Amino acid sequence: MSGTAAELLARAAELGAVSEEPRRLVRRFATPALARAGGLVAGWMEAAGMTVRRDALGNVVGRVGGEAAPLVLGSHIDTVPDAGRYDGPLGVLAALAVVERLRDDGTRPTVPLEVVAFADEEGTRFGTSYLGSAAYAGGFDRAWLDLPDADGITIAAAIRDAGGDPEQAVAAPAPELAGYVEVHIEQGPVLEREGLPVGIVSAIAGQSRVRVAVTGEAGHAGTLPMDGRRDALAAAAEMVLAVERVGRGQEGLVATVGALSLSPNVGNVVPGEVRMLLDVRHAEDPTRARAVDEIRAQVEQIAAAREVDAEWATRYDIAAVELDPRLRELLADAVRAEGLPVRELVSGAGHDAVVLSRLCPAAMLFVRCAGGISHDPRESVSEADVGVALDVLERVVRRFA
Amino acid sequence: MSGTAAELLARAAELGAVSEEPRRLVRRFATPALARAGGLVAGWMEAAGMTVRRDALGNVVGRVGGEAAPLVLGSHIDTVPDAGRYDGPLGVLAALAVVERLRDDGTRPTVPLEVVAFADEEGTRFGTSYLGSAAYAGGFDRAWLDLPDADGITIAAAIRDAGGDPEQAVAAPAPELAGYVEVHIEQGPVLEREGLPVGIVSAIAGQSRVRVAVTGEAGHAGTLPMDGRRDALAAAAEMVLAVERVGRGQEGLVATVGALSLSPNVGNVVPGEVRMLLDVRHAEDPTRARAVDEIRAQVEQIAAAREVDAEWATRYDIAAVELDPRLRELLADAVRAEGLPVRELVSGAGHDAVVLSRLCPAAMLFVRCAGGISHDPRESVSEADVGVALDVLERVVRRFA
Repeated sequence: MSGTAAELLARAAELGAVSEEPRRLVRRFATPALARAGGLVAGWMEAAGMTVRRDALGNVVGRVGGEAAPLVLGSHIDTVPDAGRYDGPLGVLAALAVVERLRDDGTRPTVPLEVVAFADEEGTRFGTSYLGSAAYAGGFDRAWLDLPDADGITIAAAIRDAGGDPEQAVAAPAPELAGYVEVHIEQGPVLEREGLPVGIVSAIAGQSRVRVAVTGEAGHAGTLPMDGRRDALAAAAEMVLAVERVGRGQEGLVATVGALSLSPNVGNVVPGEVRMLLDVRHAEDPTRARAVDEIRAQVEQIAAAREVDAEWATRYDIAAVELDPRLRELLADAVRAEGLPVRELVSGAGHDAVVLSRLCPAAMLFVRCAGGISHDPRESVSEADVGVALDVLERVVRRFA
Repeated sequence: MSGTAAELLARAAELGAVSEEPRRLVRRFATPALARAGGLVAGWMEAAGMTVRRDALGNVVGRVGGEAAPLVLGSHIDTVPDAGRYDGPLGVLAALAVVERLRDDGTRPTVPLEVVAFADEEGTRFGTSYLGSAAYAGGFDRAWLDLPDADGITIAAAIRDAGGDPEQAVAAPAPELAGYVEVHIEQGPVLEREGLPVGIVSAIAGQSRVRVAVTGEAGHAGTLPMDGRRDALAAAAEMVLAVERVGRGQEGLVATVGALSLSPNVGNVVPGEVRMLLDVRHAEDPTRARAVDEIRAQVEQIAAAREVDAEWATRYDIAAVELDPRLRELLADAVRAEGLPVRELVSGAGHDAVVLSRLCPAAMLFVRCAGGISHDPRESVSEADVGVALDVLERVVRRFA
């Protein structure tokens, strides 16, 4: 039987085996592994009776129904390194399952449906976010084409290597869309703590990403006296702890140094340079802005006290997004129809829904995940919870028209 | 004219252009660049009338005089990455210059002289120390042959690739040596601060090298609340600052975290693992041991408070070495004969003299370097200071017999 939670879990396992590396799951943008994953999804879409196209960026788009503005269902199929199999694919496979359910009982949707598997949400390869949905939504910025990955390959070159045309990605117009609904694992502990299979996302937290480069002076670890040092790592260590302190100072705020690298990075040299990536998120933009300002002030204070330079470069500031009240109400009705309490929650993670919300009403349904763990091979959802999510999504799609 | 400071500086520049990479100086053990550098030195030795051999490890040994136990002069010609041109080569070229001076005025040394360019002192490639002098001194440990470099190439394979026989390196007997004198840049700020061209090393600090692996739990930087985190980087940051505090707590002590790496190392993931290299040095072994114990206690306390694991693995403990009083007195006489005050100082850096001191009386002469900077392309010495060092070394060699 098609359209079941069991089949979805089997497909997630099959998709989870498609990786750039043999022993862990990593599928970055514009890699052969991502192309293979897209091929798998395209095959399932065609088998479900959808017309399938791939755009210049590698987004896989399946469509069923007429020529009107479609209701879009989907999520992404790229991953972080050493990923789990549900962050992204769950939303694509849930959309596919609902299309199969409609087909199986002969329902011709009154509004056309598009199922989209976006090609780049995590931004692992280029340090960007939402390349896939931006291109789909006609908002791909030409300036992005020149951004390099760790090997110096630009986005333009990567698109070409994957068989796409960068100019087409830039030129794509904004489509007319009736709405967007994305199913996604929660990636946090709230639903599990409250014993709920699903929750409705009220807003997606805004996010600031900053690169901080600390420059002190390298020196010989054996001969440079402690009092003559301008140790970039010791300064960075104080900054990491300042970030943590600010993050802890406000309910709902998260502040993280996720990446940090030294130069040189050898045991017998006092570190001369440290580069860090800072990530700050909150559902309310002014709260996030105040936190970023506070961190910046502390970084500058630490740098001054230690006589090192700290270069502060904002990579991006993404405003918080409130999701569509009418679509959220449709989701809430469907949750109630399943006999479950309605729980709204803020998403700390960014999602393709951020980009789609600029074009059309957008909403998200979160599914409980074990231990709140994501971006990790231990990512896990239960068959029962996936079943609830499919039933809720099916109700929303049937009622959307 | 040969044997001058000007010629030495010219040779140091020539040698400094021999690198594995086009734009920075790096000459690691058993690389083609090191072989080319050894060839250059061997050519100069032969031109100075020395008999030259290369041993299994790639040490270049020039000899002049009879069959008795020789006075050995030298240093190393391998480098750290992005090195300066004097750390190591200065001692080899100074030895060569003194041999040329003796030859030019027709002096036949009463004790044979050996000039050695050791092939591995920095240990950059294999994380070892003193492979070159250990092999020369008949103390090459068979267990080292299996140590891998970053590409998984073992020392045994590297020796073979460079045309040597690993078994010969292991089998080399300890030679009979009359003494060892090494000229080296100070790599610290003391001589510059006191306005002295040269100083005499009284002792080489002992060194402890420890690898600390901190394991917390990775998680999504946007969705994992601050109070639920076990952030390995935040824990490591506290440890880095504890190392610095302990290092500052005692005169002459240095304690450094020179290398630190995260896993995963991406902006939107709370770090789950951090690996650090800790380096602690002091001229007195009990002081160093107490500092290491104090750091370990603090690391364990921080790990316990943050509910992370901290695995402590001692890589090596090298005892401090007092240099030979009689040879130091010979050096002091020579310094006084130059009309200069005698300054004895402790070397915070390890040197080939550590290994040679196990076989024979060993001593070292430090030369002032600009800004105390080493392990850096800005490493610099003055022609005048090199001239003083050559005159002092020449006096010692003439008086040694």
